[in-house]
Amino acid sequence: MSAASFAVKARANQPVVGYWVVLDSPVSTERVARLGYDYVALDAQHGLMGYSGWLHGLMAIDAAGSAGIVRVPSNSAASIGQALDAGAAGVIVPLVNNAEEAAAAVRAVRYPPHGLRSYGPMRSALRIGPVPSEANATVLCLAMIETPEGLENVKEICAVPGIDGVYIGPSDLCLAVGGKFPNDPDVSEEFDAALVAIREAAQAAGVIAAIHTASGEIARQRIAEGFTFVTVASDLTHLEIAAANHLSTARGE
Amino acid sequence: MSAASFAVKARANQPVVGYWVVLDSPVSTERVARLGYDYVALDAQHGLMGYSGWLHGLMAIDAAGSAGIVRVPSNSAASIGQALDAGAAGVIVPLVNNAEEAAAAVRAVRYPPHGLRSYGPMRSALRIGPVPSEANATVLCLAMIETPEGLENVKEICAVPGIDGVYIGPSDLCLAVGGKFPNDPDVSEEFDAALVAIREAAQAAGVIAAIHTASGEIARQRIAEGFTFVTVASDLTHLEIAAANHLSTARGE
Amino acid sequence: MSAASFAVKARANQPVVGYWVVLDSPVSTERVARLGYDYVALDAQHGLMGYSGWLHGLMAIDAAGSAGIVRVPSNSAASIGQALDAGAAGVIVPLVNNAEEAAAAVRAVRYPPHGLRSYGPMRSALRIGPVPSEANATVLCLAMIETPEGLENVKEICAVPGIDGVYIGPSDLCLAVGGKFPNDPDVSEEFDAALVAIREAAQAAGVIAAIHTASGEIARQRIAEGFTFVTVASDLTHLEIAAANHLSTARGE
Amino acid sequence: MSAASFAVKARANQPVVGYWVVLDSPVSTERVARLGYDYVALDAQHGLMGYSGWLHGLMAIDAAGSAGIVRVPSNSAASIGQALDAGAAGVIVPLVNNAEEAAAAVRAVRYPPHGLRSYGPMRSALRIGPVPSEANATVLCLAMIETPEGLENVKEICAVPGIDGVYIGPSDLCLAVGGKFPNDPDVSEEFDAALVAIREAAQAAGVIAAIHTASGEIARQRIAEGFTFVTVASDLTHLEIAAANHLSTARGE
Amino acid sequence: MSAASFAVKARANQPVVGYWVVLDSPVSTERVARLGYDYVALDAQHGLMGYSGWLHGLMAIDAAGSAGIVRVPSNSAASIGQALDAGAAGVIVPLVNNAEEAAAAVRAVRYPPHGLRSYGPMRSALRIGPVPSEANATVLCLAMIETPEGLENVKEICAVPGIDGVYIGPSDLCLAVGGKFPNDPDVSEEFDAALVAIREAAQAAGVIAAIHTASGEIARQRIAEGFTFVTVASDLTHLEIAAANHLSTARGE
Amino acid sequence: MSAASFAVKARANQPVVGYWVVLDSPVSTERVARLGYDYVALDAQHGLMGYSGWLHGLMAIDAAGSAGIVRVPSNSAASIGQALDAGAAGVIVPLVNNAEEAAAAVRAVRYPPHGLRSYGPMRSALRIGPVPSEANATVLCLAMIETPEGLENVKEICAVPGIDGVYIGPSDLCLAVGGKFPNDPDVSEEFDAALVAIREAAQAAGVIAAIHTASGEIARQRIAEGFTFVTVASDLTHLEIAAANHLSTARGE
Ligand SMILES: [Mg+2]
Ligand SMILES: [Mg+2]
Ligand SMILES: [Mg+2]
Ligand SMILES: [Mg+2]
Ligand SMILES: [Mg+2]
Ligand SMILES: [Mg+2]
Repeated sequence: MSAASFAVKARANQPVVGYWVVLDSPVSTERVARLGYDYVALDAQHGLMGYSGWLHGLMAIDAAGSAGIVRVPSNSAASIGQALDAGAAGVIVPLVNNAEEAAAAVRAVRYPPHGLRSYGPMRSALRIGPVPSEANATVLCLAMIETPEGLENVKEICAVPGIDGVYIGPSDLCLAVGGKFPNDPDVSEEFDAALVAIREAAQAAGVIAAIHTASGEIARQRIAEGFTFVTVASDLTHLEIAAANHLSTARGE
Repeated sequence: MSAASFAVKARANQPVVGYWVVLDSPVSTERVARLGYDYVALDAQHGLMGYSGWLHGLMAIDAAGSAGIVRVPSNSAASIGQALDAGAAGVIVPLVNNAEEAAAAVRAVRYPPHGLRSYGPMRSALRIGPVPSEANATVLCLAMIETPEGLENVKEICAVPGIDGVYIGPSDLCLAVGGKFPNDPDVSEEFDAALVAIREAAQAAGVIAAIHTASGEIARQRIAEGFTFVTVASDLTHLEIAAANHLSTARGE
Repeated sequence: MSAASFAVKARANQPVVGYWVVLDSPVSTERVARLGYDYVALDAQHGLMGYSGWLHGLMAIDAAGSAGIVRVPSNSAASIGQALDAGAAGVIVPLVNNAEEAAAAVRAVRYPPHGLRSYGPMRSALRIGPVPSEANATVLCLAMIETPEGLENVKEICAVPGIDGVYIGPSDLCLAVGGKFPNDPDVSEEFDAALVAIREAAQAAGVIAAIHTASGEIARQRIAEGFTFVTVASDLTHLEIAAANHLSTARGE
Repeated sequence: MSAASFAVKARANQPVVGYWVVLDSPVSTERVARLGYDYVALDAQHGLMGYSGWLHGLMAIDAAGSAGIVRVPSNSAASIGQALDAGAAGVIVPLVNNAEEAAAAVRAVRYPPHGLRSYGPMRSALRIGPVPSEANATVLCLAMIETPEGLENVKEICAVPGIDGVYIGPSDLCLAVGGKFPNDPDVSEEFDAALVAIREAAQAAGVIAAIHTASGEIARQRIAEGFTFVTVASDLTHLEIAAANHLSTARGE
Repeated sequence: MSAASFAVKARANQPVVGYWVVLDSPVSTERVARLGYDYVALDAQHGLMGYSGWLHGLMAIDAAGSAGIVRVPSNSAASIGQALDAGAAGVIVPLVNNAEEAAAAVRAVRYPPHGLRSYGPMRSALRIGPVPSEANATVLCLAMIETPEGLENVKEICAVPGIDGVYIGPSDLCLAVGGKFPNDPDVSEEFDAALVAIREAAQAAGVIAAIHTASGEIARQRIAEGFTFVTVASDLTHLEIAAANHLSTARGE
Repeated sequence: MSAASFAVKARANQPVVGYWVVLDSPVSTERVARLGYDYVALDAQHGLMGYSGWLHGLMAIDAAGSAGIVRVPSNSAASIGQALDAGAAGVIVPLVNNAEEAAAAVRAVRYPPHGLRSYGPMRSALRIGPVPSEANATVLCLAMIETPEGLENVKEICAVPGIDGVYIGPSDLCLAVGGKFPNDPDVSEEFDAALVAIREAAQAAGVIAAIHTASGEIARQRIAEGFTFVTVASDLTHLEIAAANHLSTARGE
């Protein structure tokens, strides 16, 4: 699906399901991207890839006909610009704490007069209109809610003009609500409450409620709860699980 | 397990289970190699990697503590030497048709006076004794049986001095017995008979009976049949299957 | 255009125009491939790329929607197989001297029972049917005529079953007819006669008459002469010419 | 020309003409750099390269005998330091808005006591004296004027000690003066006035007036206007134009 | 030695000796790391490597059984996180000027509740407990003292909770005390006094006194002075010296 | 020194001293190449580099102003052509057993009418005349003598037209004369006799007597014996030795 169609669908809050890539392995990224996922996200924060991984990964996703987005390493105008210039149809910005930081992310994503994105859409111009207003209209900007401050300020973040949605990072969010490790059962109530709070804030503001999940099963549950932008993660963990299962089976364990 | 221990175990016909890597993705290769597989094989024939993929893949396997082997692109002394110099504990040589070709593979694997391997164990010397006789004693040489001629000459191939075993490539072997595509049910009898013939030839000659499989379940079955060197393949297909299943589940299909 | 459509068009001797890439620069390859060329060829013989260049180049061409082919480094089954597994819609095989060598190229390109291609279409299966008969029907095999022997044996080469066409390498062919350097005016008659001979041999045999050219202008002339598969070469030289012209103009020279 | 000679020539306001590289393609960069350009600039902001692209690109330019400079991704001490350590003879710093930002760029470029550049000239020491005072004397620091604030503050920026010149980014500058897209004819007067203002500010301050252009023709015009540091851009666009023209010609369009 | 054992040894102020790598050359890094160095440090500030160099370098060090640490390009949470996620057992943070900056480094290194490190230990989880508290307990955070301000504030920096030690960068420190170049004899007294001041501040605070050296001989001297974390630098310079010596000898100079 | 000057000097049997690179590390290769070595050889047989290592290594050597040559992986026309097209000023061909194989190497190195090298000097044309006769006159072709057969046939090999010299590979040669490992003292007489035989054969034929050495000291001795083309090897071993010595010294061992 084209970047423009993907943006329309996502903003209309029709559920979209994506896949999360942390491997610098364009061949597998292309293969996964052909399966029918609405989008494929390259993780440039915790994923194991440098710039060439972003570039070849986006090319692989384009070859597969899905929409490629990038979780940038930080809320920096330079890295947001590089992801977009390389052809990303959107960015997921980590660790957004407040409206000011969300506004900075938006400025990095939008060209003037709506932002400060510098002009040089080297690869993105191939699929996303090189005219600034078209790019501004198409590219998605999602702010991650995963810190105590971000959770506290989620309504203000959702209200920032140009923010297309909020994206929950469950591992960091679990630590943010006091967990000792991701999925810490001791804070499951606080964690679930945080999910509801963020989702409702998004729904109230009319922006996308997005979230990361570990499996198709959890993804389905999140969609049922009202999230409309749900990513299944990740290539590395799924491959490890599959290989471990094959080994146990082979050995009759 | 060290290359020497792995060779001892494999030659003693204690069952070894390996994993097959076609992706140029050292991070996932390391991860899989830590799961307990006896060996991990890098596919330099059909896999999607060039020389740097071999090198970094072998380094990843060493970092994980498994034994790395390489399926070389062809029965060429140059590529066999490069795989071994890069640190492979063994090679799987494709498309061996007869005893003469098997002997050529052995010559490429062994240093003089048992072969013609050229001396320059740049990385392999780190783990496999740089003294030629030690390397000769340690490194495995497996000949693939997957062509009509190879099948016909399997006994002669097993009898070639220095051949450690024969390795069945099921896809090519299926075409070799007349299949129109891998796993063609129309030739399942011929295929099964070929498997038995190859395995029995190996057992009679006292060399390793090795085979490629698509899953832990098939691997287990092959071990039960008497194969002692069984590879589960591959990272790319397993990841694709996992990602497809997650998508179906997420969409409730 | 899909690989299958491209093969149909080329075999029907409808003129196809391609572009020749020697740079390991997937970004520019993608850009050029979007311009409307029927195919883009990656030069793995004289071009400046290793295996990762083939792979990313083919991915770039697929992302652009053109058909990617590879001029392999030599008439070797291993490298032909690797190009096809990486997703090439056809190969151009250099320095074919006689029918026997042409038949070897065909065997490397076709799966059994028509050839000896080993099965493992890792990336090519994404776009070219993984069933061997479909791949056999789709993938193009072009033999280069560029040596004295190849020129002498062109009719026999054109008659080899499975050869889709003959491809003239003008630089080597010029040396083959006695030139001291490519485009040596002292042998222009011999050179032109060789072109006619090769083209007529192809036409008589009903296979593709293909040729390399340095510009759109020469390409157009070759099409007018009856060639139906014409490549414009290359990214490196065209960029150099453009940069040289801009410099002269800037300096007012 | 050596980095030192290049700096002398540029600071003397003798016109220098450069070429702009956005491709991670050292082979073509070397080729272009041999044509006689006074300098070749690698674009690390909008260009399609990561760190290895900077490094190999600078090596290619050195092999060709031209002077290599880097447009850094942002006004960050870390990236400016990395470009210089990799051997750049100068940096072009994007999006400089005011004197304070210009001073920060200078500090990142100069060693103490004139700045805060950290010492470790790994590759640059090969050609630019490893003694800090020599490097300080040689390396160029150009501030880009391409935002509304930068335009407003251009005189103050030109007055910052250690700034060698101001470099106009026409695309961003066009948006800065209200254009809807680069070269927007609706703001051509404002754009031209901005060019004059920036050039005159530079001339008044005795620093270099530098500008980006799309062709040798525009470059020549800018030199005639009084700019003395003029870049022709870029490899990717020039190659695309050439390939498009060859295709039209080949098809007789 | 495992990361945990290394941290214990280093924090106990048992002398540890490391090696400094600036080359993106995993093969030589692995080789050096097998020699028995307690740790090997990859230089991501002045070294000649991008992200893939960090990743493959850390894999090489793990394959060799040493502890890998990274000198990050700057005191930025994003790059500290990427080094740790890639598997570093510690980071050396350059150019720390004061307690506030030291505290920022600590926050980037530690997960909540002791810091703000974002969770996603993609590769590091293989060897450093994925539970945040274990990683917090294991990973080393060293602040470089190499600027005038850092020198002035060294006691406050040593007192920052979570700082494991201070690491002297002699080249920058020499410039910081007024040297015209590294090892400037004119400031040797000031330089030596600075070393004593930093070491004593560390000893008084009970944190590691660490330093960079150019040779084993200087390293030994620094250990004798009381430094307990001493790095010998670097692969590039040592190779250059060796190659220069071999050339002189070969030529009888 | 230019490739042409280097060839003239080497063919005139003026002693030339080179350095041997097995690391894929262009930065260190450039550094070593600037020290004054007459040539730098990249090892594409036992060295740890693929095609991109050849290409970037040759670029680094050119940037340093030395002459780059390549020890190709095998006596194959394809790999010899690729090394030369990438800019090598000569090739060292391993494992040449007899005059026929030497003649094949020559054919791969020379353009028609003296050989069969295919025309496409993509990078080499930058420094070695693109006119075939000039390249033929400039590029060096050295045949390695390191097998029992090669030793036996050394006179015939030296007599092959177009062979510029013979190059001794001491490790393989030691095994060839019955050694159990390189430098095996049990065969030192046979080894020394072989060296004399090869050198005298070269001298009698008027071709270059070339040899590999482990140090400047041995290099000097070989020059004194009459060898005129002597390589010191290698970056990896020299770096390892240096790092080991620094560690011993640091620890006071
Ligand atoms: Mg997170
Ligand atoms: Mg097979
Ligand atoms: Mg040719
Ligand atoms: Mg700009
Ligand atoms: Mg420093
Ligand atoms: Mg040898």
